[in-house]
Amino acid sequence: MLRIYGDVYSGNCYKIKLLLKQLGRPYEWVHMDVVRKETRTPEFLARNPNGRIPLLEIDDHTYLAESGAILHYLAEGSAFLPADHFAHAQVLQWMFFEQYSHEPYVATARYIIRYLGRPAQHAAALQQKMAPGYEALDVMEQHLQKHAFFVGDQYSIADIALYGYTHVAHEGDFDLSRYPAIRAWIDRVRDLPGYVEMDG
Amino acid sequence: MLRIYGDVYSGNCYKIKLLLKQLGRPYEWVHMDVVRKETRTPEFLARNPNGRIPLLEIDDHTYLAESGAILHYLAEGSAFLPADHFAHAQVLQWMFFEQYSHEPYVATARYIIRYLGRPAQHAAALQQKMAPGYEALDVMEQHLQKHAFFVGDQYSIADIALYGYTHVAHEGDFDLSRYPAIRAWIDRVRDLPGYVEMDG
Repeated sequence: MLRIYGDVYSGNCYKIKLLLKQLGRPYEWVHMDVVRKETRTPEFLARNPNGRIPLLEIDDHTYLAESGAILHYLAEGSAFLPADHFAHAQVLQWMFFEQYSHEPYVATARYIIRYLGRPAQHAAALQQKMAPGYEALDVMEQHLQKHAFFVGDQYSIADIALYGYTHVAHEGDFDLSRYPAIRAWIDRVRDLPGYVEMDG
Repeated sequence: MLRIYGDVYSGNCYKIKLLLKQLGRPYEWVHMDVVRKETRTPEFLARNPNGRIPLLEIDDHTYLAESGAILHYLAEGSAFLPADHFAHAQVLQWMFFEQYSHEPYVATARYIIRYLGRPAQHAAALQQKMAPGYEALDVMEQHLQKHAFFVGDQYSIADIALYGYTHVAHEGDFDLSRYPAIRAWIDRVRDLPGYVEMDG
């Protein structure tokens, strides 16, 4: 059985759970506490030398890291990853956008607040996340004003990748009230078959 | 003909050029000056709302952003992207690793020095790039001590993605003398057919 090393409140880990639930694939979940540095032990580093979660264990000693790569691996051949060459590339475009231009701001702001308890020494870092985080949300809003989902107007792992941290962006102090198209998209994702909440 | 909007000294843009040369595909290169904010004009934002390069123009009004997505799009069906399901996912794993754990440190340090001229107000930011940049290089070194290339001991777009900024890491103050396996891999990449230098 597939095994996920993850943290239920990590958006990157939640993306994998959401896809597996929608694929109807069983899995085992091994909880990892990032704040306690459980991802930095010699045992875990032997599984993923980059010391991050989520990590997928496919067989004994066969591991795959990086949420984007795991989503792609699990979705291939399913309705969640279009087979068309250009649409497939567009899915990856949005997934790389999320990891480079969105997650380091929207997710990290939430980490500082929710996981670290908004310590004073991170106040400047938290403030610096705001402008680029809103820029990424602006790009999403602009796209969603014209499209129901990110690629080909069909729900795909591009939506899962962007949903992971966007739907909890308020926990990172981002105000989604100014983004009606994003909020409508969040509602559309929530209404999909097999949808599961982060802690569900 | 394919058109690339890019900057010849940007590692992310160079990755696309290197792959196109190795594929033997002709292309047109449109120079974009990032420091002069040419990627933030209304004309360019209409092509890529995220305002970044490289950007691939496939046909009139058909654009693809994100170096990782462009590499994947161009390499599919070639020897530079393995068809095997798990190997394919491993290629993406290293490409997401590069964009999340490597590029924001190794490339951005170089940007502060080479493009911005090492201004005093960025001294603290530059210093903060060092430790995580070296962590990413450590992960690469560990892998390359046992493997000739990143996936399946065969050169792929995972190598291109990591080569882009690693081979110029010294321009970002990173000392590669402590990484013999990375230096040997850089030499292996340089010896490949179709190899072209950044400014070549």
